[in-house]
Amino acid sequence: MLDTLKYPIIQAPMAGGISTPALAAAVSDAGGLGFLAGGYKTAEGLAEDIQELRQLTSSRFGVNIFVPGPSDADEDAIAAYRLKLEREAECLGTVLGNPSADDDDWNRKLDLVKAERVPFVSFTFGCPSKGIIQELQANGSLVIVTVTCVEEAKIAADAGADALCLQGIEAGGHRGTFSNGTDLQEEYGLLVLLRLVKQELGIPLIAAGGIMDGRAIAAVIAAGACAAQLGTSFLLCPESGTNPVYREALASPRFTSTRITRAFTGRRARGLVNDFMEAYDKEAPAAYPQLHHMTQGLRKTAAQNGNPEYMSLWAGQGYRLAQPLPAGELVRNLTAQLLEQNCE
Amino acid sequence: MLDTLKYPIIQAPMAGGISTPALAAAVSDAGGLGFLAGGYKTAEGLAEDIQELRQLTSSRFGVNIFVPGPSDADEDAIAAYRLKLEREAECLGTVLGNPSADDDDWNRKLDLVKAERVPFVSFTFGCPSKGIIQELQANGSLVIVTVTCVEEAKIAADAGADALCLQGIEAGGHRGTFSNGTDLQEEYGLLVLLRLVKQELGIPLIAAGGIMDGRAIAAVIAAGACAAQLGTSFLLCPESGTNPVYREALASPRFTSTRITRAFTGRRARGLVNDFMEAYDKEAPAAYPQLHHMTQGLRKTAAQNGNPEYMSLWAGQGYRLAQPLPAGELVRNLTAQLLEQNCE
Repeated sequence: MLDTLKYPIIQAPMAGGISTPALAAAVSDAGGLGFLAGGYKTAEGLAEDIQELRQLTSSRFGVNIFVPGPSDADEDAIAAYRLKLEREAECLGTVLGNPSADDDDWNRKLDLVKAERVPFVSFTFGCPSKGIIQELQANGSLVIVTVTCVEEAKIAADAGADALCLQGIEAGGHRGTFSNGTDLQEEYGLLVLLRLVKQELGIPLIAAGGIMDGRAIAAVIAAGACAAQLGTSFLLCPESGTNPVYREALASPRFTSTRITRAFTGRRARGLVNDFMEAYDKEAPAAYPQLHHMTQGLRKTAAQNGNPEYMSLWAGQGYRLAQPLPAGELVRNLTAQLLEQNCE
Repeated sequence: MLDTLKYPIIQAPMAGGISTPALAAAVSDAGGLGFLAGGYKTAEGLAEDIQELRQLTSSRFGVNIFVPGPSDADEDAIAAYRLKLEREAECLGTVLGNPSADDDDWNRKLDLVKAERVPFVSFTFGCPSKGIIQELQANGSLVIVTVTCVEEAKIAADAGADALCLQGIEAGGHRGTFSNGTDLQEEYGLLVLLRLVKQELGIPLIAAGGIMDGRAIAAVIAAGACAAQLGTSFLLCPESGTNPVYREALASPRFTSTRITRAFTGRRARGLVNDFMEAYDKEAPAAYPQLHHMTQGLRKTAAQNGNPEYMSLWAGQGYRLAQPLPAGELVRNLTAQLLEQNCE
């Protein structure tokens, strides 16, 4: 089904309001594949997004859902981190959220994508059971699982996924690792990950991480991917829900690098290096989604105050190549670059 | 001059006796570009290698030289690390080396490559001065500088380098960063690094890091590289100086991942995760080449004892794809894969 896309370009699901129905619709209408991000939303909120998207387009689209992990975080470490951040929240004139563990409305979102017969359903932070994957497939969905290493790729292929989204270390936002453990897992660059998995498995592979232009798409296709998934590349599109302060930060000389940190959500994620990251990078425990809930208000208040230093400015390593173009035009430009034989 | 290579395949210089004249000759004779590693050798030792290579082939070849850095390491930290390692050395029945700082015979190696009119001269760990680059070029050499980020790429292009070797985070062995500082620099994946530098500079780019097969070479060429440099891919060739214990480790189920560490040399380098790395990864100060000299005997003794746990087993992230083939055959296989239009 992926090979029936007009162009091998997938717009990555970006949670927190970035991947709007308007963005997904524009990408799908231009011949790519637009995605809604189910993460952090209630099932009702996601249902509204799907309805809105279907009003905008009859093109196919995808929905991404976060797979809940074990709630085995260290409560003392969370409490200690909370103490440190309380002063910061006070300075910003807000309070910290309750560091609760939840399953992100997992069952109701699964019911929703089944009821809505969503054409592409992708998963992040884990692999759903064989049973869930089979139900979705029997219902007409194509199932994609996000993986970051060969071992995860094998698990997802064994579970019956139709395709894998291989996420390289270059990617912006959360690492899609199945485990949130503190053991340092191998941090594969995209190209070598693609070749390692391709060597082991025949399943279709979507390449993600640091892909910003048509030449990079051509590269991952040459390396054996059937499509490329781009997130950061779409951050500056007018259809994206990217906050204006965030947009400005992406182009500002104040920010010069990205790093992977647990500071904002308790799960490793890549974003622009700002004051909050510098201050709390080494302090944050592996406690997701607890830290996400705890810092959410703080980050929101920072955004309202126009202060990028306390926001989670997720960005892939190629963020400087992002262009403020309408999403449809961006997809057409990417495609034109991809199809050029000699664009030097 | 790079575009006159028959095939866009460069064998990476690998110090410590891996890149033998026989390996470089076989690669160059097969239509790639073989490299000798000048690092750690005396000028006389390198001169012998060049003579031996010239007896083996009339094909063109390259020589890599390490650029000396400032000797600003923390002596107390070196002494503290030495104390920790002394027990280990004793257990292995050896003693630690003197943690001296040196310039790796810099001036005499420069004189040598000039006197020998070496066709390709590449540099790692820094950028030589404009004057040195011009002298080499006037003498008929093509000058390549290894870089790991856009800023280093700009410095090397400004200094007049003919080409840049872009090293992605996937690469085995030492990171080629200009500075050995403890500030964490952005660790770019190869593909995004290639696109970021290509956007800024018109200079020819050689892609390095995790490239193991013809499809990955095709990928970096699609992304704008003029050639690919492969190191780990050649480790198992019979012509390589790879120690038998090291060869065995690369194929052993005991070793399952790679990591970047300062533990062996005081400079960040990627290798197989073994006991020494696990034990000393977090302890080692940024003191290169002091730690290299200090641990060299220990590593050598471990190799003689058949103990891979105390050796520096440099390897790129794709090491599992290395094949024990003669170097010429490997180059021909890589080329065949590269030229195939549909090799799925």
